Amino acid sequence: MQLKGACIFGQSGGPTSVINSSAYGVFKTALESDCITRVLGASYGIKGILNDELFDIGLEDPQELSYLLNTPSSALGSCRYKLKDPAVDDTDYKRILEIFKKYDVRYFFYNGGNDSMDTCNKVSKYLLSQGYECRVIGVPKTIDNDLYGIDHCPGFGSAAKYIATTTAELYRDAHVYDTGSVLVMECMGRNAGWLTAAASIPALQGTAPDLIYLPEVAFDVEKFLAAVEKKYKETKNCFVVVSEGIKDKNGKFIAEYATAGASAVDSFGHKQMGGVASYLAALVKERTGAKVRGIELSLLQRCAAHCGSRTDVEEAYMMGCEAVKAAVNGATDKMVAIERLTDCDGYRVRPILLNLDVVANAEKKFPLEWITEDGAGISTAFLNYALPLIEGEPEIKWENGMPRFAKLKKIIAK
Amino acid sequence: MQLKGACIFGQSGGPTSVINSSAYGVFKTALESDCITRVLGASYGIKGILNDELFDIGLEDPQELSYLLNTPSSALGSCRYKLKDPAVDDTDYKRILEIFKKYDVRYFFYNGGNDSMDTCNKVSKYLLSQGYECRVIGVPKTIDNDLYGIDHCPGFGSAAKYIATTTAELYRDAHVYDTGSVLVMECMGRNAGWLTAAASIPALQGTAPDLIYLPEVAFDVEKFLAAVEKKYKETKNCFVVVSEGIKDKNGKFIAEYATAGASAVDSFGHKQMGGVASYLAALVKERTGAKVRGIELSLLQRCAAHCGSRTDVEEAYMMGCEAVKAAVNGATDKMVAIERLTDCDGYRVRPILLNLDVVANAEKKFPLEWITEDGAGISTAFLNYALPLIEGEPEIKWENGMPRFAKLKKIIAK
Repeated sequence: MQLKGACIFGQSGGPTSVINSSAYGVFKTALESDCITRVLGASYGIKGILNDELFDIGLEDPQELSYLLNTPSSALGSCRYKLKDPAVDDTDYKRILEIFKKYDVRYFFYNGGNDSMDTCNKVSKYLLSQGYECRVIGVPKTIDNDLYGIDHCPGFGSAAKYIATTTAELYRDAHVYDTGSVLVMECMGRNAGWLTAAASIPALQGTAPDLIYLPEVAFDVEKFLAAVEKKYKETKNCFVVVSEGIKDKNGKFIAEYATAGASAVDSFGHKQMGGVASYLAALVKERTGAKVRGIELSLLQRCAAHCGSRTDVEEAYMMGCEAVKAAVNGATDKMVAIERLTDCDGYRVRPILLNLDVVANAEKKFPLEWITEDGAGISTAFLNYALPLIEGEPEIKWENGMPRFAKLKKIIAK
Repeated sequence: MQLKGACIFGQSGGPTSVINSSAYGVFKTALESDCITRVLGASYGIKGILNDELFDIGLEDPQELSYLLNTPSSALGSCRYKLKDPAVDDTDYKRILEIFKKYDVRYFFYNGGNDSMDTCNKVSKYLLSQGYECRVIGVPKTIDNDLYGIDHCPGFGSAAKYIATTTAELYRDAHVYDTGSVLVMECMGRNAGWLTAAASIPALQGTAPDLIYLPEVAFDVEKFLAAVEKKYKETKNCFVVVSEGIKDKNGKFIAEYATAGASAVDSFGHKQMGGVASYLAALVKERTGAKVRGIELSLLQRCAAHCGSRTDVEEAYMMGCEAVKAAVNGATDKMVAIERLTDCDGYRVRPILLNLDVVANAEKKFPLEWITEDGAGISTAFLNYALPLIEGEPEIKWENGMPRFAKLKKIIAK
C-alpha cells in the first residue's frame, strides 16, 4: 500500500479566512510524512499545474508557514477554472498527467468548494482511467456552507462569526439616534442562505435584525416593503439583512433588477451578484422617506481572519492534516469531511471521507424548517447548529497593530 | 472651591468604537467622587436634557457598566442637535437651566466632536451668563481625528486599526486570482483624510494600496483613471482607497456626481456622503474593462469594537476620568485633550485642558506634507504618528462566539 512520491496542493475558488489553515495542515503533515518525498504548492490552483508553476514548500521558513494558520485568502493564489469534459477535450488532462509524471507526483490535494470538487473529481477519474497511480483527495472550503455531505464546511464558521459580530455592532450603531433609520445589510451566498442566517445569532444578545431574507424563499418586493414600513412606523427603526442571492417567485435574482441588465458571468456561468442592499435601500427610502443605509459586507466577510472562529481554524487545519493522512493510508478519489457526533454531550466532530463524485457540483441549501413562517426570520433551532461553529477566538500574532500574516518566499520548484 | 451636586453626562454626534470607554471613565470616576451626589446619563445627548429623559447611572450594575469599556456606539443614545444662538432664541437654554436646577446639576460632561463642542461651549457660556454655578467639560470623540488642538482624538485609533487590518486582509483577497481586478475602497472623513490615510499602514507588511486619495487634495477624475489604468496594465491589479469627501478642483464633492443631485443634508448642514466607491468603480470598469469592485466601509469602521485599539480604549477611558477630576478640581468651560510628549523615548501622552471656544467648530486637516507629491499616496512620516495609536488589542469578553456588550437598565431618574 505504501506509495512514495511528491505531492501537489492547490487552492481553488473564492478564498476564505481559513483556507490557509487547511494549507498549513497539508504542508505540515506532508513535510513530516515518510511517503511524501516533496511538497509542492500550485500557483493559482489547477492553473499552476497547467503552467508548470509550482512552489517548493520545503524551502519555506517553518515559522512563516505556521502563520498560515491565521492568514486569510489563498496564499498560493486561486482560480475559477473549469476543466472540460475529457471526452470532448482532454488537452488539459494530458498536460496535468505530463506535469505529474515530471515531478513524480503521487499525491494531489485540492482545496475548494463544489466547483473545485468537480475539478478534483475529473482529475481523479482521468488519472484512474490512465492507470497512473496517484491518490487524489479533496479538502473542503467555502464560506457559503453549501457543500454537500458535510455537517458544515471550513470557512463558514469564521465568516458566520464575523457576520454575527458585525451585526451585533451595527445593531447598536443603527439605533443610536432617536430620529429613526432603516439599515439594509447584504451577505454573500448565491443560492444558500447560511451566511445570511448567521445575522440572526445576536438574538442571544437581544440585538437581532428585524427581517432576514434568504435565497431559499421567494422574495416579494411588495411584501418586503410593507414589512419594513410597518416595523419602521412602530419603532422608528428597521434592520434588514438580505442574501445577495434573493430571487423573486420566477427565480430572477433581485440583483438583476438592481444592475438593470448588466450581467457579468464568471467561468462557471454564475452571474456576478451584488448591489441588492443599495437597490432595496433606495426602494425603502422612496416608500418610507426614512434615512436609509445599504451596507454590503462584500469581500470583508470572507477575509476577516482577525475575527476568525477558533473552532473553524482548528477544523480547517484538521481537514488538511486528515487529507494527507488518509491519502498516505491508501485513500483516493475522496473528499475529507466533517461529521458531527450526536451521541455525546456537547459539540464533537470527526473526520470522514466522502466519494468525490457525490460531492462535486452538489449544493446543500439552508433547511426550510429553520425559516420562520413569514419567510423573514430564522428559528432558534439554527442556533444549536451554528453556535459551536463560531466558538472561540484564534491566537493571532499582532505586529505594528495589525495581524501578522504569512509571507511565503514562493520559490519555483525545479 | 468644592462644589457639590449632580452631574449629567451626554453623548453626541456620530458614535465610535470607544465612545462608551469615555462614558465608563466619567461614570466610574463620578460615582466614586465625594463631590458628585448623583450621576445622570442623558438619553440621546442634549435632547435628553431638553426632554427631561435622564438615566440614573447609580442604579446600574457595576459589572455591566464595566462592559462599556469595549461596547461600541453611544450606549445612552446620541443626537445631532444644533443649539440656536441664544441671542436669537434662548428657549432651549432656559429649558436646560430649568432641568439643571431641578436635579441640582453642578457638573456637565458632553462627549462629542467639533459640532458637539459647539453645543458644550454654548451651554457653558449661557450658564456663566446666568451666574448658575456649573462646571462644564467637553470630552473629545471622533473617528475622523479632525478635532482641533488635540494630538489625536479618541475614536480615531480604533477606526484606524480596523481600516489598517481590513486593508491588509482585502489586499490579499484582491490579489488571489491571476485574472486581475481593481478594488476601490471608501473610508469616512468628510473634510479630513486621517482615516483614509490609515489604509497606508499595511505598507509595513508590503500590502499597501496602490493609490490613496484624501479630501485635502483636489481630485481629478481623469488623472485618477489614468493612474488606475497604468497600474492595472502593469500589474493586472490596482487597489485604490478614497475618502468619502474627495472633491474636485471647484470644491464639489465627487459623491455629488455619484448621487446626481440627490442631496440629503443633516441638521448641521453637512451633505450626506457615500457612494463614491461604486461611482468610481463604474468609471474604472468603463475605462479598463477590468473586473472592478467598490467597497464602502460605511458604519463598520466606526463600530468595529471587536478590532479596537487598546491604546485608544485606554485613552478614551482616561479622557472620561480626567474630565471628572478636572471639574471636581475647579475647571470649567474646557475640553480635556491629549498631548503627545516629545521629550521622551517611545510613546507617551498626558491629559491637558483646552478652552471650549477654541475647539468648537474648528477642524484639523491632514498635513499636506504627509501626502506624496503625486497626491495619491501617504508618506512614511505618517506612520510615526499613527502606529502608536493602533497599538494593542483590548481584552474583550466573548460570549456565544460574539463580544459581550454592556446591557444597561436605563432607569429614568426621578
